[in-house]
Amino acid sequence: MKRIKGRYSDAVTLRRGQDLKVTTETGNQVADMWAFSLNDMTEYMSMEHCRSINSLIHVTAGCSLVSNRRRTMLRVTHDSAEMRHDTLLCPCTSELYEELGAPGHRSCTANLHEALERHGLSCPFTPASLNVFMNVPVAGDGSVTRLPPPCQPGDHVCFTAEMDVVVVLSACPQDITPINGDARTPTDLLVEILDPSDSKAISQ
Amino acid sequence: MKRIKGRYSDAVTLRRGQDLKVTTETGNQVADMWAFSLNDMTEYMSMEHCRSINSLIHVTAGCSLVSNRRRTMLRVTHDSAEMRHDTLLCPCTSELYEELGAPGHRSCTANLHEALERHGLSCPFTPASLNVFMNVPVAGDGSVTRLPPPCQPGDHVCFTAEMDVVVVLSACPQDITPINGDARTPTDLLVEILDPSDSKAISQ
Repeated sequence: MKRIKGRYSDAVTLRRGQDLKVTTETGNQVADMWAFSLNDMTEYMSMEHCRSINSLIHVTAGCSLVSNRRRTMLRVTHDSAEMRHDTLLCPCTSELYEELGAPGHRSCTANLHEALERHGLSCPFTPASLNVFMNVPVAGDGSVTRLPPPCQPGDHVCFTAEMDVVVVLSACPQDITPINGDARTPTDLLVEILDPSDSKAISQ
Repeated sequence: MKRIKGRYSDAVTLRRGQDLKVTTETGNQVADMWAFSLNDMTEYMSMEHCRSINSLIHVTAGCSLVSNRRRTMLRVTHDSAEMRHDTLLCPCTSELYEELGAPGHRSCTANLHEALERHGLSCPFTPASLNVFMNVPVAGDGSVTRLPPPCQPGDHVCFTAEMDVVVVLSACPQDITPINGDARTPTDLLVEILDPSDSKAISQ
């Protein structure tokens, strides 16, 4: 079990066949998530290809999470919250916090690159993130709203790896909008690899 | 006036204040579109940031088209089709055509990189495209459908540049699904820079 402190990030590796369980301890925490091929950082989980292959604008149990090369990286095998996880909105960035009047604020974008760098990896850009537990309903006119997670404490999503991947998770530091709950206090994520004897948590 | 042959692509530069007009001659042609800062290819038009800043899942007249650094690159100033232009689905790729039983088919992804290379530019990945004239309605359950453009011959969209940019346009070669019309025959796009005395079409 790995604990990712609210506002921070970490990376884990998963071998094909292993399961990843991501839990929101409080029920009020979004996990921005990225995946990269373990052997080739130019192959990454792509939200635009996920929407295409699932013909769906969100992610829910049963969805395939595919790469920019259309290979299935992960599959969503269980979702205790039975919700629609957001694929639409950008990970937060330093520029977004400047817009919100909070220059210098931590961001999921910086968290991605920090987690990669800590493990000797890098990506020259920021892929769109899968925003696990993020509640962004879309109205008939195409407009989006940003609501607190519709989760209970301990809600979790399980992913099965269909190839060897590095997964980065960021406990989103957003504390200005209510996307991490009305208390606007980022909280911890719990990350488990369910076949620990085979796991290689590269950050241990 | 530049003509982009159906299934092919080209690039133009726009200086701040210039207008770009993109026309579907037949009313049945999608234009996959990308933009990059003229001075820095690491700054590119980002669909996930566009959805965030407009709080909207499609693009329509009045929308800002922003970069991964949240700067407005272009603004949609006119849309004769008054439609919802798709931001959700990936540009087509060689792997997608393999799925569809058409290996070796031309793709918008290859078209992007070919157009850049012809002009001495490169991008190490493929940003999500703005899919001009592409008709992808989203149902209440979040599912998407792929329909022919809801356009008339000569329908056009105008963009005003708010910074100096390189724009790549691909006349989408998709001829298996009906996204380019029921005839499934890609057709030409017409591209005009409306202040021609100041224009620098880098592909001339």
